[in-house]
Amino acid sequence: MRSVATLGSHCALQLLKGAKDEGLRTVLVCERGRLGLYGRYPFIDVTVPVDSFAEVAGQECRRVLAENKSVLVPHGTLVAQLGESEISSIEAPVFGNRRMLRWESDRVLKEKLMREAGLRVPDPVASPADISGPVIAKRQGAAGGRGYFVSSTPQEYEEKRAALVSDGTISDGEELYLQRYVPGVLAYLQYFYSPLHGRLEFFGADQRHESDIEGLARIPAAQQPGSGWTPSFNVIGNSPIVLRESLLDGAYRMGESFVEASGRLVGPGMNGPFCIEGVYGADASFTSFEFSARIVAGTSVYMGGSPYYGLLFGEEMSMGRRIAREIREADESGRLGEVAF
Amino acid sequence: MRSVATLGSHCALQLLKGAKDEGLRTVLVCERGRLGLYGRYPFIDVTVPVDSFAEVAGQECRRVLAENKSVLVPHGTLVAQLGESEISSIEAPVFGNRRMLRWESDRVLKEKLMREAGLRVPDPVASPADISGPVIAKRQGAAGGRGYFVSSTPQEYEEKRAALVSDGTISDGEELYLQRYVPGVLAYLQYFYSPLHGRLEFFGADQRHESDIEGLARIPAAQQPGSGWTPSFNVIGNSPIVLRESLLDGAYRMGESFVEASGRLVGPGMNGPFCIEGVYGADASFTSFEFSARIVAGTSVYMGGSPYYGLLFGEEMSMGRRIAREIREADESGRLGEVAF
Amino acid sequence: MRSVATLGSHCALQLLKGAKDEGLRTVLVCERGRLGLYGRYPFIDVTVPVDSFAEVAGQECRRVLAENKSVLVPHGTLVAQLGESEISSIEAPVFGNRRMLRWESDRVLKEKLMREAGLRVPDPVASPADISGPVIAKRQGAAGGRGYFVSSTPQEYEEKRAALVSDGTISDGEELYLQRYVPGVLAYLQYFYSPLHGRLEFFGADQRHESDIEGLARIPAAQQPGSGWTPSFNVIGNSPIVLRESLLDGAYRMGESFVEASGRLVGPGMNGPFCIEGVYGADASFTSFEFSARIVAGTSVYMGGSPYYGLLFGEEMSMGRRIAREIREADESGRLGEVAF
Repeated sequence: MRSVATLGSHCALQLLKGAKDEGLRTVLVCERGRLGLYGRYPFIDVTVPVDSFAEVAGQECRRVLAENKSVLVPHGTLVAQLGESEISSIEAPVFGNRRMLRWESDRVLKEKLMREAGLRVPDPVASPADISGPVIAKRQGAAGGRGYFVSSTPQEYEEKRAALVSDGTISDGEELYLQRYVPGVLAYLQYFYSPLHGRLEFFGADQRHESDIEGLARIPAAQQPGSGWTPSFNVIGNSPIVLRESLLDGAYRMGESFVEASGRLVGPGMNGPFCIEGVYGADASFTSFEFSARIVAGTSVYMGGSPYYGLLFGEEMSMGRRIAREIREADESGRLGEVAF
Repeated sequence: MRSVATLGSHCALQLLKGAKDEGLRTVLVCERGRLGLYGRYPFIDVTVPVDSFAEVAGQECRRVLAENKSVLVPHGTLVAQLGESEISSIEAPVFGNRRMLRWESDRVLKEKLMREAGLRVPDPVASPADISGPVIAKRQGAAGGRGYFVSSTPQEYEEKRAALVSDGTISDGEELYLQRYVPGVLAYLQYFYSPLHGRLEFFGADQRHESDIEGLARIPAAQQPGSGWTPSFNVIGNSPIVLRESLLDGAYRMGESFVEASGRLVGPGMNGPFCIEGVYGADASFTSFEFSARIVAGTSVYMGGSPYYGLLFGEEMSMGRRIAREIREADESGRLGEVAF
Repeated sequence: MRSVATLGSHCALQLLKGAKDEGLRTVLVCERGRLGLYGRYPFIDVTVPVDSFAEVAGQECRRVLAENKSVLVPHGTLVAQLGESEISSIEAPVFGNRRMLRWESDRVLKEKLMREAGLRVPDPVASPADISGPVIAKRQGAAGGRGYFVSSTPQEYEEKRAALVSDGTISDGEELYLQRYVPGVLAYLQYFYSPLHGRLEFFGADQRHESDIEGLARIPAAQQPGSGWTPSFNVIGNSPIVLRESLLDGAYRMGESFVEASGRLVGPGMNGPFCIEGVYGADASFTSFEFSARIVAGTSVYMGGSPYYGLLFGEEMSMGRRIAREIREADESGRLGEVAF
């Protein structure tokens, strides 16, 4: 029987629970410090203890994954902790399109794909000297928002950056990516593209809770610390949001464009779960500042089933279960190579 | 067999899914640009393409709705896009009390009904010259918060209004409605009144996410733009909130009073879904600034079933399904005329 | 047959619905003013009308609870309205460890237990004269946040306190507890410890919505009232948040430490539901400012089942139902004395 394998972090719980619910076996590659956590849950068939997640590309994991006929489902931790060549070297079939993960991690490629998809993106700011008005500085890769900060002038940027370097949050030579800051309603739009059914599905949306920027909302202006304080964007959790139904068609169009653009640039294109991340501005138009070319942690908000998938499937369906169903259906029809490679 | 019909927008998905779950047929009156969106969902039996929603009162829709023995369920899009006489001219039975929709759309009638129901309402401000302290300016009808703004002085009001006129958000002669601004926890209280069972039901509560006012919470005071920026209240989505249980009795009382007052002023009174919209202030008392005399989009937060309805019905029940159940039960007992007319 | 009894407030609905779902009988001790509210729900077998909740320790309640073989489930209203000796005098078995309720209500004991558990707590501020930087002033016991306020200087503290005394929110001699204010993402971590299974379970997390502090987020700095306004922290409701999965191990560790520390200080220790309340700061570490040694109202966010319990139990499970299951299992195996005493 096929199994679903993943790294013990990020959204492993819903991935393996979903796999179990679809009748598949489950394999967890788990750092020793977290064996206790995952041992609490009753749906994990095989656990492979590792010292570091990089071992997922190593010999022992290779053996176990082969033995269990595993399909590896990548998530943010894999993207954050493995380099491009390590991801390439994984022998097990990887769900989705693993080549897309590089486009997610590289700011230049990322922006190229977003523009190819016709997504409205915030203006990049080429150099700190060009800052005039609010700009957000971001690190490369999936850093969970740690070390991100907003500044409005070149001088403010340099001061805040220096403070983060001196406290060790970012390293001295680290290059940051600057984007114009767009205020509005943050929304992370979660999708699934099924090559088996030739169908894009809108799964749901979430909002992120980030620290300590979120705390700002409860501090009166008169009591806010002044220039000595740089609020950061460290992701702590997620909560559900349901979109105004008139925005749904636009959300589908963005998803379709993204799938098509990825087909042109990163053949065979995006398949499986992905996310377009951005903000609805004052005029209700959407500006995208990121994408994730794999399952996002925000889907865990709907571990018990997303409202939109209830409409589509008539049953409670998490993203983890949706992935497992695609694997099972592909396997049963001899098309696994189309959804994992 | 009866069918449920609605316009393709606002909360059509949960309405028709709920109808299907109750064993009814489903009819969607759909603008051509959104045929693709609604075509993605598997529970729509009949689709009537139209160029504009106003055609719902026209001959072709009349024929299809009659042929399918449809009960039309009105929602915010119908209120926003059809005038009073168009709504009156719809031949199909309309779920709820269609005469109430006029009271929802007209600010003077609306306030009259709210006062009749004994709801605490924010003081209206008769003229911009009377502004002293925060006041919210609102447009007539269901505009989804677009063009709403807050100002604290007559001068600030005039500047902001002029800016919105010049960018085309509101029209030059458009009359705005001014209310004292009440800070606190926003809550949209969702109800259903069943004449079949003589029973008021509390369905749940939600919070709205509005742009770009929501973005304000993440901008330090020192970086907020000054007088040149007018945050707006364009509704983007909704999220769930569960009320402190000690507030529930008050919520029921407000709902009961509203149903009774509507019976006196707009016989036979409010039936079906409605919403009382307001804010819980520092002393936990509720100030209502609006009502909706039909299903609100915020109920889509609970498309998979509301927590409070789980308590009442012992099963997962969306507002869409609740409406369909009332239609089915009324039809089966020969009382359809009491719930749709 | 066993019954579950509780006071008609706080989270009574989910407690009794959960008990009914587990096949137990249900008893509600209800103040007369709320008989109407609870009469709306179909799962309450016996209602005992009282003039005041203190009567739960009186003769009539004693008789009814004995007659119905009730296990009393305590919640925040019981803690807020009954003194230590009244709680001690309740004859019915009380679910959890009723001696812990005193440690919850007394600020000094509370802080002692939190430190024993190795939780990071905000620095207490011994006297108003020592205030330098944001400090939150809190009342003793479970006051639902009413009368809490933030100040940054001794002078600001005195002014705000005087205003709350003069409007009757707090009494003249009332001693307030001062803690350093920690900004970030607020999270209320909900747990259940089962002595039957020797197992700690993480149930979920919620965020509180408090008035009128929540309204602050929507008022531009330039329009915020000045020193004349003291935002308060009156709890209005709760909403769900799902934690980043990498924070889950830490959440379990805090819960384990809390159970162990309570075993040392308040034998036989914490059993049943409890909550650790705090804030995730900029570095994603958790600072705890409170605990509740019984079910918290925020679990009502998951009346239809918590995502994390879906993982553990493979079925929809509210905290109310979890408690009822523990009672039923304990009763069936002759171990009721371990979970209620």
